[in-house]
Amino acid sequence: MSKLVEVAIVGASGYSGEELIRLVLRHPNARLTVITSRQYEGRKLLDVFPQFSAFPVASELVFVKPDVHLIARHAKFAFMALPHGVSASMVPDLLLHGVRIADLSADFRLRDADVYKEFYGADHPCPQLLSKAVYGLPEIYREEIKTAELIACPGCYPTSILLPLIPLLKEKKINPTKIIVNSMSGVTGAGRKVELQYLFSECNESLRAYGFPKHRHLSEIEQELSKAAEQRVIIEFIPHLVPVNRGILTTICTDITDTFENKQNCNPGEVAVKSWQAFYANEPFIRVYQGNYLPDTKNVVGTNVIEFGCRFDPRTNKLIIVSAIDNIVKGAAGQAIQCFNIVNNFDERCGLV
Amino acid sequence: MSKLVEVAIVGASGYSGEELIRLVLRHPNARLTVITSRQYEGRKLLDVFPQFSAFPVASELVFVKPDVHLIARHAKFAFMALPHGVSASMVPDLLLHGVRIADLSADFRLRDADVYKEFYGADHPCPQLLSKAVYGLPEIYREEIKTAELIACPGCYPTSILLPLIPLLKEKKINPTKIIVNSMSGVTGAGRKVELQYLFSECNESLRAYGFPKHRHLSEIEQELSKAAEQRVIIEFIPHLVPVNRGILTTICTDITDTFENKQNCNPGEVAVKSWQAFYANEPFIRVYQGNYLPDTKNVVGTNVIEFGCRFDPRTNKLIIVSAIDNIVKGAAGQAIQCFNIVNNFDERCGLV
Amino acid sequence: MSKLVEVAIVGASGYSGEELIRLVLRHPNARLTVITSRQYEGRKLLDVFPQFSAFPVASELVFVKPDVHLIARHAKFAFMALPHGVSASMVPDLLLHGVRIADLSADFRLRDADVYKEFYGADHPCPQLLSKAVYGLPEIYREEIKTAELIACPGCYPTSILLPLIPLLKEKKINPTKIIVNSMSGVTGAGRKVELQYLFSECNESLRAYGFPKHRHLSEIEQELSKAAEQRVIIEFIPHLVPVNRGILTTICTDITDTFENKQNCNPGEVAVKSWQAFYANEPFIRVYQGNYLPDTKNVVGTNVIEFGCRFDPRTNKLIIVSAIDNIVKGAAGQAIQCFNIVNNFDERCGLV
Amino acid sequence: MSKLVEVAIVGASGYSGEELIRLVLRHPNARLTVITSRQYEGRKLLDVFPQFSAFPVASELVFVKPDVHLIARHAKFAFMALPHGVSASMVPDLLLHGVRIADLSADFRLRDADVYKEFYGADHPCPQLLSKAVYGLPEIYREEIKTAELIACPGCYPTSILLPLIPLLKEKKINPTKIIVNSMSGVTGAGRKVELQYLFSECNESLRAYGFPKHRHLSEIEQELSKAAEQRVIIEFIPHLVPVNRGILTTICTDITDTFENKQNCNPGEVAVKSWQAFYANEPFIRVYQGNYLPDTKNVVGTNVIEFGCRFDPRTNKLIIVSAIDNIVKGAAGQAIQCFNIVNNFDERCGLV
Repeated sequence: MSKLVEVAIVGASGYSGEELIRLVLRHPNARLTVITSRQYEGRKLLDVFPQFSAFPVASELVFVKPDVHLIARHAKFAFMALPHGVSASMVPDLLLHGVRIADLSADFRLRDADVYKEFYGADHPCPQLLSKAVYGLPEIYREEIKTAELIACPGCYPTSILLPLIPLLKEKKINPTKIIVNSMSGVTGAGRKVELQYLFSECNESLRAYGFPKHRHLSEIEQELSKAAEQRVIIEFIPHLVPVNRGILTTICTDITDTFENKQNCNPGEVAVKSWQAFYANEPFIRVYQGNYLPDTKNVVGTNVIEFGCRFDPRTNKLIIVSAIDNIVKGAAGQAIQCFNIVNNFDERCGLV
Repeated sequence: MSKLVEVAIVGASGYSGEELIRLVLRHPNARLTVITSRQYEGRKLLDVFPQFSAFPVASELVFVKPDVHLIARHAKFAFMALPHGVSASMVPDLLLHGVRIADLSADFRLRDADVYKEFYGADHPCPQLLSKAVYGLPEIYREEIKTAELIACPGCYPTSILLPLIPLLKEKKINPTKIIVNSMSGVTGAGRKVELQYLFSECNESLRAYGFPKHRHLSEIEQELSKAAEQRVIIEFIPHLVPVNRGILTTICTDITDTFENKQNCNPGEVAVKSWQAFYANEPFIRVYQGNYLPDTKNVVGTNVIEFGCRFDPRTNKLIIVSAIDNIVKGAAGQAIQCFNIVNNFDERCGLV
Repeated sequence: MSKLVEVAIVGASGYSGEELIRLVLRHPNARLTVITSRQYEGRKLLDVFPQFSAFPVASELVFVKPDVHLIARHAKFAFMALPHGVSASMVPDLLLHGVRIADLSADFRLRDADVYKEFYGADHPCPQLLSKAVYGLPEIYREEIKTAELIACPGCYPTSILLPLIPLLKEKKINPTKIIVNSMSGVTGAGRKVELQYLFSECNESLRAYGFPKHRHLSEIEQELSKAAEQRVIIEFIPHLVPVNRGILTTICTDITDTFENKQNCNPGEVAVKSWQAFYANEPFIRVYQGNYLPDTKNVVGTNVIEFGCRFDPRTNKLIIVSAIDNIVKGAAGQAIQCFNIVNNFDERCGLV
Repeated sequence: MSKLVEVAIVGASGYSGEELIRLVLRHPNARLTVITSRQYEGRKLLDVFPQFSAFPVASELVFVKPDVHLIARHAKFAFMALPHGVSASMVPDLLLHGVRIADLSADFRLRDADVYKEFYGADHPCPQLLSKAVYGLPEIYREEIKTAELIACPGCYPTSILLPLIPLLKEKKINPTKIIVNSMSGVTGAGRKVELQYLFSECNESLRAYGFPKHRHLSEIEQELSKAAEQRVIIEFIPHLVPVNRGILTTICTDITDTFENKQNCNPGEVAVKSWQAFYANEPFIRVYQGNYLPDTKNVVGTNVIEFGCRFDPRTNKLIIVSAIDNIVKGAAGQAIQCFNIVNNFDERCGLV
């Protein structure tokens, strides 16, 4: 019999929090004991999110105020789905109380407090924890996650960008100084923010770029790409908002290096696919497309899978990579569950298929 | 040469106000001289609504505070696109200054101040004007509109319901006590309200009923149906919110009377079509479907047309009527322009095709 | 240890077939052994539906031609997701071979071959099986389903209509001769049909009624309502197509009987809620709303839940009921799995939460 | 009094043909005399497109088979909205009969028959006409259009790419060898094609890249960019399909040249804006954004405007340009009308605002 891990979800009223609730309720080895929300404090889970009524334990859950002692008393593991900055105010205390944490905010993703300050505009509230945190990208940091006390789950855009690029950078197959990324995100990516620009009639039948040239996610993207490339990487990143609920489609334009060109009669697209297949052999949540197939967010929405593929353009000598994820699952709550499974030595698919 | 009528749009920042701006800018016989908005006071029209930049005069327009004297000095005709209750605070003064008015709010649609109080929850601020106002449904009140100083433009749901029903009630073809209406509205129908329930991710892929059993629009619907039927009419009306930007589809379930049944070998659906065709002969904005055709909002979005058709169910002896309008055009701004054309003796299509 | 039931999905290329694949792959007590599709014969499951790649067994599955012997050899239970009429050509042979069946087509839903002919326009191909089939609405026919060899799963519209109405009809709380139903369906309801009217640009931003006054689903709806009411019931049913992928919202207008009126000081809406709560006590997939809450398809999409609620209109003495389901889950594949669980004596939630 | 030009629309059943009908019916100086469609031959316009019923002349129009003599007898100007390849089979004869032509197909956009063969896979059917045709981008070729007999209207993607890039390339402000374009298109861009991939349920909630690395539109894009840059230009172009009806958003990543860098204290973004404002001074359909504003397709849908803006990324030294158009208006039918206005010496806004 598997052990049943007691779990808290802190900040459970946004889209990622809601998805965490769903995933923890479905998880065969987890028991949801605490859900916090300042906004919904005192209200029953099923009053706020009736969609969970078919889960046996859901009817007993009530939103409470976030409180370290209460969380520590009832949970061994906490998912933090709080806004950036707020998470860091609770994490140190929770760690002291022995609660292991998967933090979905950006607070502990960066290794360098100066970069944090540059991108988030404030001094980091607890820089001493930055070196302790593990970046929660399981396909890259699985070993470190196993023993981590504090897992900093990657952002949604970073997940869609890092997973296809890291193997190619590690193998020096693409030029790290020439990477251009265009991403499209569904509107849940903005969170449950009540702002004019996110009204249905303002988003539906609308396509727009936003947040560039210095989107906050660049900081963690470049940190991880630099590590893979073993040199400082700066990229161009242009996010767009498009009228779907969920999904990120990322299109990456790269210059191949002469590791490709040396080999005669080889198609760089096929070489990239072989690299990915080798690097990600047996990864349950990575789907690499061959041939003419290309990613489509509708294949990943509702799943923890990232899918990617590529095409080579012989006219420009560029390799174009396309990836797709569900921004709320592999880009947030699902990836956090995957980390939770690793920490607890469960099958990584547990609760995710 | 046609005269150029100077026009003010009061409350020009919502969806109806925005459409009014478009329609007045396009109108060959109107000149837009004043646009008011408390929210955007002092800002250029093109900063707020860049989409109008191709219109020659648009670059000169600046939002001003609503002010009766300023409006009266610069405009002979004012479109009021203010919230319910606010409109009534300016209308009396504007009328005193000789400005003719098409009011898109609900303030002057009802003939009876008690009904206003019942449905809007407050005493009417200027009941003495209620008898002066003309209900701005051109196909029914064209003669009265010609000389009206104050036109109370119908709501969007009422327009979609009244136009198909009035001829059949006048001709006693349907039972006035058995009318059941289901309507679906696009999200612009809620106005540019920044509320959680109208966020893209809350409306997209969502279908819901709301606001029944006593939606405010019932007051004007029943007033006009009662007049047509020459008896008190009470109906069931159930509005729904669906994820489109624009459009109302209304489905009306009616019981036919024995005026139908007396005639042998006749299909009540064909009889209804003949009634409509006779009643609305030469109406430019009414499209009656025959045979198997049924309305679809995509045929009316962006136009001032209402289309309707019907099917008879011999199993239940009911006549099912379906109508479609653009809630912001025939349901608001376009119908107001149609009234403006009548008042000014222009071709009714002027600026609307 | 639970037994692992071997399962075939026959006709696995449409939307319901695709959802059945997902649900069977996820089911802890089922093993998917056969998937058939004439269109995709010989192709790997993951080539056609890459979205299932994270399921361990998915990579081994290949679409085969529908063949009774092959199915019978490899499966104890078959889900039939074939078009109407096609299903009936395989069912008798499968039953002879001892395969238990959940048929998602309309072929065995009616008890009366004449009604079948009236609504489906052809003689029933195997009328002798009609009395053997059990209508697969678990909340009504659970006992019969337990021992059924042939389960005729209800249509999507019928599910959304029958579950709220049956208790009220059984208890004579509403007048069975005055029921008017308006439903809105997402576009997957039309199946994966490649027709002009279902193109994105024809459906998006479009609202339309269709298929009335004699939609085929009326036959099973009226059959079951008549049984509950113990009298012949004929209803008005008007379906609409709206631009969402999934979901049905059904709004039912009913006349209350004097069983309500006899009781003083009672609100008929509260009485209906109490009836439902009693009738459906402990049903895991029924969610009854009280108070001001009303159904929204976004609460049920992706789940096997039906939710419903009501409001009473004292002006018309009508009780308005609203229900919401996912047309592909509770309206098709999920309900079939629920029946499968009952037949196999599994927890009914198994694989569905 | 303006002359009324008689106009034919050849191939009037697709989305561009439908929009041409709307625009010609609205045009004060045009009279629609012929509409052709093999598919709808013999049917009344209003049976196929009821949405035009408010236009006085629409009721008289009937679709006819495309016939050169009939067109030449009734029209001075023909809009060709036929598929690629089909248009070229009629154009030479129509020109011989003195009909001036705006061709919306790709048949006459290229100056070089070899490039045509490379990209369209067949010999050009009438290469002798290629030098005669004028590329119908009014802001670039206005003088040539004035006297053109054959106008080859640009594709939708090319329009969105060329207009912002041409001034910067002419002024050597950006490096012509480093241009990377990502575009997103609404589904009408695929035409009214009845294919599985364009069904509502396949496109809604779906994001995908397609058609790269060698989309057919590249041929005309590179032809025109090369001309502006006075050197051979090869670009990367990656189109995407997104769930909106209309609109293209194009994001262009460019490297600035040292014409920028020489000037101290200047922001390259501001320099680009000044270039555009000078180059496109007084252009009615070009809207250049300054400051923080960025394009959004919802500002251009339904209009003939292209809007664009840019941001400079000092971290990468790249200038990111974003443009938005309505693919069916400025990207097709509207731009053709603009050319028609130029040919006939009408105000260019005529019928377009």
